[in-house]
Amino acid sequence: MIATRLRQAIPFTIAIGIWFAPVPAGLTAQAWHLFAVFVAAISSVLVGAFPLLTAAMIAVGTLVLSGTIAPAHAFSGFANASVLLVVIAFLVAQAVVKSGLGKRISLFMVSHFGGSPLGLAYSIVLTDAAIAPAFPSNTARGGVLFPIVLSVSQGAGSKPGDPEGRRLGGYLMFCAMASLALSSALWLTATSGNPIGVQIAVKSGVEIGFGSWILASSVPALIAIGMLPLLVARLFPPGVGATPEAPAAARAELAVMGPLSRDEWITAVTFAVMVAGWVLADLLKLNVTSIAFTGLGVLLMANVLTLDDIAKQGDTLATFLWLAVLFALSGQLNELGFMSYAGERLASHLRGLSWPVLYVTLVVLYVFIHYLFVSQTSQILALLGVFLDVGVRGGVPVPLMAFGLLFASSYFSVITPQGGSQNIIFAASGYLTQGELYRLGLFVTLAFLAVFLLVGTPWVLFVAG
Amino acid sequence: MIATRLRQAIPFTIAIGIWFAPVPAGLTAQAWHLFAVFVAAISSVLVGAFPLLTAAMIAVGTLVLSGTIAPAHAFSGFANASVLLVVIAFLVAQAVVKSGLGKRISLFMVSHFGGSPLGLAYSIVLTDAAIAPAFPSNTARGGVLFPIVLSVSQGAGSKPGDPEGRRLGGYLMFCAMASLALSSALWLTATSGNPIGVQIAVKSGVEIGFGSWILASSVPALIAIGMLPLLVARLFPPGVGATPEAPAAARAELAVMGPLSRDEWITAVTFAVMVAGWVLADLLKLNVTSIAFTGLGVLLMANVLTLDDIAKQGDTLATFLWLAVLFALSGQLNELGFMSYAGERLASHLRGLSWPVLYVTLVVLYVFIHYLFVSQTSQILALLGVFLDVGVRGGVPVPLMAFGLLFASSYFSVITPQGGSQNIIFAASGYLTQGELYRLGLFVTLAFLAVFLLVGTPWVLFVAG
Repeated sequence: MIATRLRQAIPFTIAIGIWFAPVPAGLTAQAWHLFAVFVAAISSVLVGAFPLLTAAMIAVGTLVLSGTIAPAHAFSGFANASVLLVVIAFLVAQAVVKSGLGKRISLFMVSHFGGSPLGLAYSIVLTDAAIAPAFPSNTARGGVLFPIVLSVSQGAGSKPGDPEGRRLGGYLMFCAMASLALSSALWLTATSGNPIGVQIAVKSGVEIGFGSWILASSVPALIAIGMLPLLVARLFPPGVGATPEAPAAARAELAVMGPLSRDEWITAVTFAVMVAGWVLADLLKLNVTSIAFTGLGVLLMANVLTLDDIAKQGDTLATFLWLAVLFALSGQLNELGFMSYAGERLASHLRGLSWPVLYVTLVVLYVFIHYLFVSQTSQILALLGVFLDVGVRGGVPVPLMAFGLLFASSYFSVITPQGGSQNIIFAASGYLTQGELYRLGLFVTLAFLAVFLLVGTPWVLFVAG
Repeated sequence: MIATRLRQAIPFTIAIGIWFAPVPAGLTAQAWHLFAVFVAAISSVLVGAFPLLTAAMIAVGTLVLSGTIAPAHAFSGFANASVLLVVIAFLVAQAVVKSGLGKRISLFMVSHFGGSPLGLAYSIVLTDAAIAPAFPSNTARGGVLFPIVLSVSQGAGSKPGDPEGRRLGGYLMFCAMASLALSSALWLTATSGNPIGVQIAVKSGVEIGFGSWILASSVPALIAIGMLPLLVARLFPPGVGATPEAPAAARAELAVMGPLSRDEWITAVTFAVMVAGWVLADLLKLNVTSIAFTGLGVLLMANVLTLDDIAKQGDTLATFLWLAVLFALSGQLNELGFMSYAGERLASHLRGLSWPVLYVTLVVLYVFIHYLFVSQTSQILALLGVFLDVGVRGGVPVPLMAFGLLFASSYFSVITPQGGSQNIIFAASGYLTQGELYRLGLFVTLAFLAVFLLVGTPWVLFVAG
């Protein structure tokens, strides 16, 4: 109780301390006060004082009522197309879960690849990569994968309590969790953070669409995906040689499901059209958010989703509120010149580095700072712009720096069990200890970092100059 | 099933029929296409084809993807301060219900005024009027009043099944339902439609704040509130002379509640500060939406509201989505010149009327058109701007025309049982038949109309010129 109170005093102390400190030369008082409140809001989450929603509400209220930011600027995030895409995507993803289409796809993959732990892991990882572009919430995707991983593990006799028997389940759980990190790096539309990051990168002059993203990510992400089940098997051996009964079990369950239901058909066709629209959006000058709006409308019209399903999505409203606010505040930090000021400070410490060294330093620093963050999006909002700016000023080619940081924003999520909200359900399954989660998280993140730096760098330079 | 399919074809038929009809002289194709989709969306709700959310999603998707409206315009409603106020107010109101403060206030009123049916009715009506400014959702306010009305009725032995005994309950139910209509007309912040209407009125050049609203509404609304229990007692006699046990029952229940809990204290203080902020907003140049954001933040910080409470508010998200979309589309209809075009058409039919006759005609027409609408907000969005414009062009003083229509937008809600979402819970209680609800609705609405025209008109001209 006292510990909680003390923790809750931290963000206020930070806000007041910075607010009333002398404004550094080169910054307006407005920018400095915004920085004080923004840092306090982020730190409130880092130290576990208040959740993001609480911090965001207090922050936006304080900033507008104190006259630091105009209401129109403070509220602009709510009308931002990327923020709206995240919100609508959360709602649309419910159709895949509810209709049973997600489960069917997973079972189909297991029935074909599930003859050994490695095969099972590949089936999970490939399923994830295949459904990811139509699933712009990796948390929702985790919600589809988890019951499959759990039933496959239990079906093979692996239970959390059993010291040896738990290993297969633990292996599959970690593979699935790390897979979400990679599939999110693979597709622009596979996680809520990506469109946000792209929006920030626009300010540095790099336009990234669905097509240019998949072109740049394909080689490093697919290599990392291909490597993942083997790497985790080496770090955490599953302890079982073969699971010959899994494909049959999946086939049996598929048989029970019967042919595609009406709702599955409608969901499948709607998503196919939406994904086609997203892929061709640049070419046909279609607004991606409006494609999602229309998709949601069609699913509601067809009764695949109902108003009752939406009524259960209060969590999405909470996400909408804090995301829109922090997004607008982060944008204002940039507008008011704070980002470039902070960038210059960071740059002064890194001065004289050649651009390749600077690039590597920034990416490595960006990945390890994630130990401090409990949300990928909050790190993207707080730091992506600054790091990108420092790299670009130091001579790193803009697309390389942008993609380097954007991909890292996805693959760094397994570095801690709470490094991404999609981890929670897998980490809480009981198959792995906290120590194992941190150890596996570190080594797997190091491997991802190596692949994206060593293979990703030349590939991105080749395709995106 | 076939009837549903046919009904669902109506909005599409309307949209396609208007879209491909020749564009009337004086309108751009853009404005005409927007009109086609907007009318189809509203009619989809009127004929019961699709709910507002579904219609809004399809409408915004179609309009942006067809290039009729730019994404930035189509999404602008999400960042609108009034729309955000509605959303945050819904969330904040949960604290009054959850903390028990709303129940306590109601019990307190009953314990003082509850000695007869008339006294009970006054206690309900005055409670409602007193808590309304801090309760910007009249549906949420109905959710606080309803259990009190129900328990008071049952406590006095009045049950729905009993032909005579049900009369007390029916009397109180209708008083409470009609009370919500009047308390919404009394305070700017008492219903979600008011800030929306005010926002529309701004386009005709009349700025209305919390203070100027209550000044203009006070006399007609308080007279109507004072008259309501007497009028309904005449139209639907409660059949009981006195309920001497009700005050004691309320006192007993208050005693059981004990002193104000921590959460009630925090809610009370937070609301007191918020209401003070709303009242003084114009004077101190405070943004009312940011006051609500801060209030929500404080209630979350104090754990009066938790993230779990917000997670249950998916309905609010649905409201946010359709409201923001329809709000933006209605604004665009105005921007693109459609409203003034429609206004000219309506005006040509009403040409030559002196301004007082025009004013009365417009208000009466506006009230009776509500027979067609199931949502107050949708009529405000569709018609308030047009009616206001016609009146202003015909020489009616702008503040008079604006207040006349704004107040009507609240008090017309009892004209049918489905004329406002806050009615539903009372209408569904079983104490009154559908026939009684329609009959009482008509006579009570006529009485409200008379009070607001005969007393409200000179008063508004006196205070707001």
